[in-house]
Amino acid sequence: MTRWRLTVEYDGGPFVGWQRQAEGESVQETLEHAIGRMTGERVAVHGAGRTDAGVHALAMEAHADIAKPLSEHRLREGTNALVRPSPVSVLGVAPVADDWHARFSCSGRRYRYRILNRRAPPAVDRGKVWHIAAPLDLEAMIEGAAKLVGLHDFTTFRSVHCQSKNPVKSLDALTVARVGEEVHIAAEARSFLHHQVRSMVGCLALVGRGRWMPGDMATALAAKDRAALGLNAPPEGLYFVGADYP
Amino acid sequence: MTRWRLTVEYDGGPFVGWQRQAEGESVQETLEHAIGRMTGERVAVHGAGRTDAGVHALAMEAHADIAKPLSEHRLREGTNALVRPSPVSVLGVAPVADDWHARFSCSGRRYRYRILNRRAPPAVDRGKVWHIAAPLDLEAMIEGAAKLVGLHDFTTFRSVHCQSKNPVKSLDALTVARVGEEVHIAAEARSFLHHQVRSMVGCLALVGRGRWMPGDMATALAAKDRAALGLNAPPEGLYFVGADYP
Repeated sequence: MTRWRLTVEYDGGPFVGWQRQAEGESVQETLEHAIGRMTGERVAVHGAGRTDAGVHALAMEAHADIAKPLSEHRLREGTNALVRPSPVSVLGVAPVADDWHARFSCSGRRYRYRILNRRAPPAVDRGKVWHIAAPLDLEAMIEGAAKLVGLHDFTTFRSVHCQSKNPVKSLDALTVARVGEEVHIAAEARSFLHHQVRSMVGCLALVGRGRWMPGDMATALAAKDRAALGLNAPPEGLYFVGADYP
Repeated sequence: MTRWRLTVEYDGGPFVGWQRQAEGESVQETLEHAIGRMTGERVAVHGAGRTDAGVHALAMEAHADIAKPLSEHRLREGTNALVRPSPVSVLGVAPVADDWHARFSCSGRRYRYRILNRRAPPAVDRGKVWHIAAPLDLEAMIEGAAKLVGLHDFTTFRSVHCQSKNPVKSLDALTVARVGEEVHIAAEARSFLHHQVRSMVGCLALVGRGRWMPGDMATALAAKDRAALGLNAPPEGLYFVGADYP
């Protein structure tokens, strides 16, 4: 039995999310089926994060235990051939120690959120960005984002469906930058609550549009109450960018 | 009657191309229907270039004559509302002189071709790049591209369906650059023959993979024979980037 680490890119558009659901196609299940067909084994694939329906990944990390001896080349190429036509791509594979766990060993997760900030809606990048037509005040967003960095109770920015036992998390970075016609928000933490990035981005968008003052981010955080949330950003602008391991 | 200039972005994936065809949805027709519904007029939309099925545009230039008085805001927003759900977006509009013509006044056209050059196939950018798994030799491609710049008979790089009277064209620039995991080829000319960019890119890919020497680009050009073409690149990596006017 070999434990394999898989680095996976996917377009979240057609999926119900990373995790298996009763209805609809999940990324996890797509990978499990492909590896299962190649090996004849019932394989469980565990991911570093559970992205929602419509959320993309540039480099999700995952692991799977496979009994059949396989070369790295065969595992990667075979899986990529068998996931078709689903928009999933295994970027790389590597054997890891038996106690390496994509989720529990992970020491850092990175997300990026893409806002297309121009009058016209997206055509080429439809489904890949959140479109905000009104001009965004970057300085105010940067000031607002800084209020959330650090160790805080993020209850306000947490889905009511969040299963985490503890709403206290350390947010290591939350940066806002203009990239051409887009505004990119990057978030880094050991772990995030369910909907945390989208909730932070939604409120930062209110700040950017002048509906909230930067200080309202601190007020919302201090409320520790989901009712204080201004706006949850849609999933299609969110990308799981990478996971770090010690 | 006002002649309007329209700057248009589109995802070429679902279209039969820019130009109206007997079967299937074209970008031209999509715009004509939208403007027609808004104005109650039969409107003809003329583009700077006729992109093939699957080819994208970041900023196609076009014009249309409209009798109904409209503000810039109303024309742009109204068209964008009515083209839905087709992936077309009017980035900007402006009134122009009656003799301004998107195609005939155009003094320069710019294309970009995106090759995803890594082992794993694309997931997020599927349909937006040409995937080449084998490593490409950039230096050789740059050397090969230089052979085509200048005033030449491009018969070798021209579709058999090309309707241009003259195969002699001046290619102003053909550059090759690595951008992360991608290789971008940029082409600039007053005008291009049908399939010229894709044919040049296809042969440059052969050079990059070592199947052709850089000098084979010059040999193919000198042959002035479509049979000397090595490979025509697929449409999905090609973008009409912009058009210039005096």
